[in-house]
Amino acid sequence: MRVAVVGAGVSGLAAIKCCLDEGLEPICFEQSQDIGGLWRYTVSRRGRPCAPQVPAPVFLPNALFLDYLRRYAEHFNLREHIRFGTTVVSIRKLPDSAITEQWSVVTETGGKQTSHICDAVMVCSGNFSEPSLPLQSFPGIERFRGQYFHSQQYKHPDVFQGKRVLVVAGFLSVSCFTSTTSSQEVTISTTRGAWLLSRVFEHGYPWDMILNTRFMSLIKTNLPAPLSWWLINYKVNQRFNHENYGLQPEKRCFLVREPILNDDLPSYILTGRITIKPGVKEFKDNSVLFHNCPEEEPIDIVVFCTGYIVSFPFLEESMVRVENKHASLYKYVFPTHLQKPTLAVLGLIKPFGAIMPVAEMQARWVSRVFKGLCQLPPQSVMEKEVNEKKKNQVQWFGLTFDEVLKTEWLVYLDTLASFIGAKPSVLGLLFTDPWLALTIFFGPCSPYQFRLRGPGRWEGARQAILTQWDRVLKPMRTRVPAGSSSPFPSLLIVMAFLLLLAAVIFGFQ
Amino acid sequence: MRVAVVGAGVSGLAAIKCCLDEGLEPICFEQSQDIGGLWRYTVSRRGRPCAPQVPAPVFLPNALFLDYLRRYAEHFNLREHIRFGTTVVSIRKLPDSAITEQWSVVTETGGKQTSHICDAVMVCSGNFSEPSLPLQSFPGIERFRGQYFHSQQYKHPDVFQGKRVLVVAGFLSVSCFTSTTSSQEVTISTTRGAWLLSRVFEHGYPWDMILNTRFMSLIKTNLPAPLSWWLINYKVNQRFNHENYGLQPEKRCFLVREPILNDDLPSYILTGRITIKPGVKEFKDNSVLFHNCPEEEPIDIVVFCTGYIVSFPFLEESMVRVENKHASLYKYVFPTHLQKPTLAVLGLIKPFGAIMPVAEMQARWVSRVFKGLCQLPPQSVMEKEVNEKKKNQVQWFGLTFDEVLKTEWLVYLDTLASFIGAKPSVLGLLFTDPWLALTIFFGPCSPYQFRLRGPGRWEGARQAILTQWDRVLKPMRTRVPAGSSSPFPSLLIVMAFLLLLAAVIFGFQ
Repeated sequence: MRVAVVGAGVSGLAAIKCCLDEGLEPICFEQSQDIGGLWRYTVSRRGRPCAPQVPAPVFLPNALFLDYLRRYAEHFNLREHIRFGTTVVSIRKLPDSAITEQWSVVTETGGKQTSHICDAVMVCSGNFSEPSLPLQSFPGIERFRGQYFHSQQYKHPDVFQGKRVLVVAGFLSVSCFTSTTSSQEVTISTTRGAWLLSRVFEHGYPWDMILNTRFMSLIKTNLPAPLSWWLINYKVNQRFNHENYGLQPEKRCFLVREPILNDDLPSYILTGRITIKPGVKEFKDNSVLFHNCPEEEPIDIVVFCTGYIVSFPFLEESMVRVENKHASLYKYVFPTHLQKPTLAVLGLIKPFGAIMPVAEMQARWVSRVFKGLCQLPPQSVMEKEVNEKKKNQVQWFGLTFDEVLKTEWLVYLDTLASFIGAKPSVLGLLFTDPWLALTIFFGPCSPYQFRLRGPGRWEGARQAILTQWDRVLKPMRTRVPAGSSSPFPSLLIVMAFLLLLAAVIFGFQ
Repeated sequence: MRVAVVGAGVSGLAAIKCCLDEGLEPICFEQSQDIGGLWRYTVSRRGRPCAPQVPAPVFLPNALFLDYLRRYAEHFNLREHIRFGTTVVSIRKLPDSAITEQWSVVTETGGKQTSHICDAVMVCSGNFSEPSLPLQSFPGIERFRGQYFHSQQYKHPDVFQGKRVLVVAGFLSVSCFTSTTSSQEVTISTTRGAWLLSRVFEHGYPWDMILNTRFMSLIKTNLPAPLSWWLINYKVNQRFNHENYGLQPEKRCFLVREPILNDDLPSYILTGRITIKPGVKEFKDNSVLFHNCPEEEPIDIVVFCTGYIVSFPFLEESMVRVENKHASLYKYVFPTHLQKPTLAVLGLIKPFGAIMPVAEMQARWVSRVFKGLCQLPPQSVMEKEVNEKKKNQVQWFGLTFDEVLKTEWLVYLDTLASFIGAKPSVLGLLFTDPWLALTIFFGPCSPYQFRLRGPGRWEGARQAILTQWDRVLKPMRTRVPAGSSSPFPSLLIVMAFLLLLAAVIFGFQ
């Protein structure tokens, strides 16, 4: 069974690897000359590798993460399945393939087109290729005499040297724009505000190793909404009062805004390197007028961090319908209207958690669906679910830039894992391996958890889970003063406390 | 009465101003062509202006702080008392001045020496002029083939581009060395470790507006030592676990190390931009060997942040004795062995708090002592106190770089203020102006508090104290969402809580 994989980024590499695991025959088309996709950009990004077989330290800079991807590709011999410099022009169902559902994939290499017949397709082209630049939403931009561009075009802070820079809606990337050496003034314009979280979370542990646990997920999804909001509000404002920093989300956005990860912004605001302003009302010749602000702000350069458009130019529009930035896909992966599930979209989801384990889990599920080892529910069930998700999406007035598909990270991983039989049974383990069960429940949900059983089971998974904190702390504990204690006593105390808390919450209800 | 002021930095400007306030005749010698001293350096620094008469926002970059100093100098007409481009060569007591204690100040301008007869001298030359580079403490440095220099010589991160940089003992300045754009690897070597505090303190308030209050100072100086250490330990490790980050102070340094302010280091360590290592054991040709580490670390550039030497080349050595980095000065200001107090050293103290209000308070005290309005205690009393301080200084084995004079900020300010009758009486105010008394006790100790009474009393001080949070929050609250509440209810709650706590602690003991 031949599977076309579009793109050799994070999702594409996972797709090739999972196809090989299932004995499928992947053929990957990558338009550039190298693997890694986004991670090959020169602007510094930080990643978090989570494929369990190649352990590596936390929060890598892009160069190191790219290096990790190269080693991943080498370890699993993925390169031989990739055609580099090959752009996918079109993917069409073969007209005589009512039963077999075969696909014709037309690619272009050096100006020459080739057609490939494939049995299935995994679209791994990502959602960061087509920038969204809704200039019509910014009155007066046509008369603005300064420079402006989409954040995708940004490469180096030198262009900002000595300039007054306006960043529209870009919290994630703003640290890149703010060099410690250049003398620019940076203003961020935000209509809706944001909750900011630091990667350096409580007691310095990586944020997701504390927040993305089964215990926390249970609390998040089961707590009564007002209590949960109060808790979020209290927690995020403990680091800094968002109102005092001009970042408080608007009342109507209050409940639904996912937090944004940014370590530097609070201190940049406190030291005046960055100023927060409301949404843009109007551009003038050399300045900008903001809502609720009488004074014009002189501006030289505008960077629009207005996100990306979800688009698949090589697919027929009917194949994946994108309405209001919401793609009609079952579990964000499968179009619901195909007779046989032979087309899947990977990585088209922005959960609040690492994207790599999600892409890998999708690839594991998809390859087993392609192979016929997993069944999808009937078309009507899938359509019903997709439509309900669409309805539940909160409707925004005005600008809605980055309203891309979001879902609870751990719940989504668990759902797909349960489809392929790889979801860990915490309750079952509690009787056979209680220490492991507790570590799985209260500890970080590292992807080893989905390698304990089912297809792709890995012998080392248990040990890897029990020693994950060692590996997280190792790259940081590079100076151990003589006579210093191990981190485990305090971890044990934390565990004991959480256990007690869980007992109180769930035991006596 | 003619007063020579050496240097026109922060302390020098305060000195000139306070001399003028007391009707003395200051003559300031500044070796450069401009005011501002340290703050004129091109490397970015952040300051905190605290002289009450010219209010300005919190944590300014050096350029804005320098601008503040310029406005300060202009507002009080200080420039006309400064001789720029004039280096002080020597300061000697006139031989026939047994009674008058006059001084001969020899200066050099453009190669030409001039002698000035002055009645008193304020030394404001700072303690950041003579770098300390104890190369003998670093075995093998002579064979090291890379580049090395003292942090004072550092100007721009470009020199680090693509290099492996070792920073020895420099936590304060390390953010400067770590650019977001350059590709260098930075290792920090620290023998003793450090407690790190963030300027963005709890709930995002500036650290010293929460920590440097009379309430906190009372707790700090009155709590039993073990409880106080436990509290400090808990507090600093709440932000991040210092042991996990390789920063844990050595057991023997545990009790005495003052925290260091750094906003960026934890996230830089977590994302691998900075690695912490123990003290340097030995330099090799192209690498460094650390204590307790078997592997050599390849290094291209070494920056020694080994502090500065306290020295006064223009003074006779007998005038200010500096032993073991401890200058024998009463209250860090007056030599104890002069018959009449006509020589004073300003700004030779590193309290854990803003240095500007300290320099100003010293200048206020010194000018009144010079004028004869304040008396110093008898020589024997002063000498006894200085010697006791010296004894209490913890003795260190091995390297002790930055063991400069440190003392509790607020206690020191209060002591000097009480000398000139400017210390606020919280207890007295509790009956006449209770709201002001509570704000003074629980709120940040801004220098307005020392302008409520006594010489230099300022009419606007009360109002300035009651509205100080407005001014702190104003530059940050540049985006106020519609229908947002004021910050005061929550401040009231904080106050009420602190009041309750104080009642519990002090009321029922």
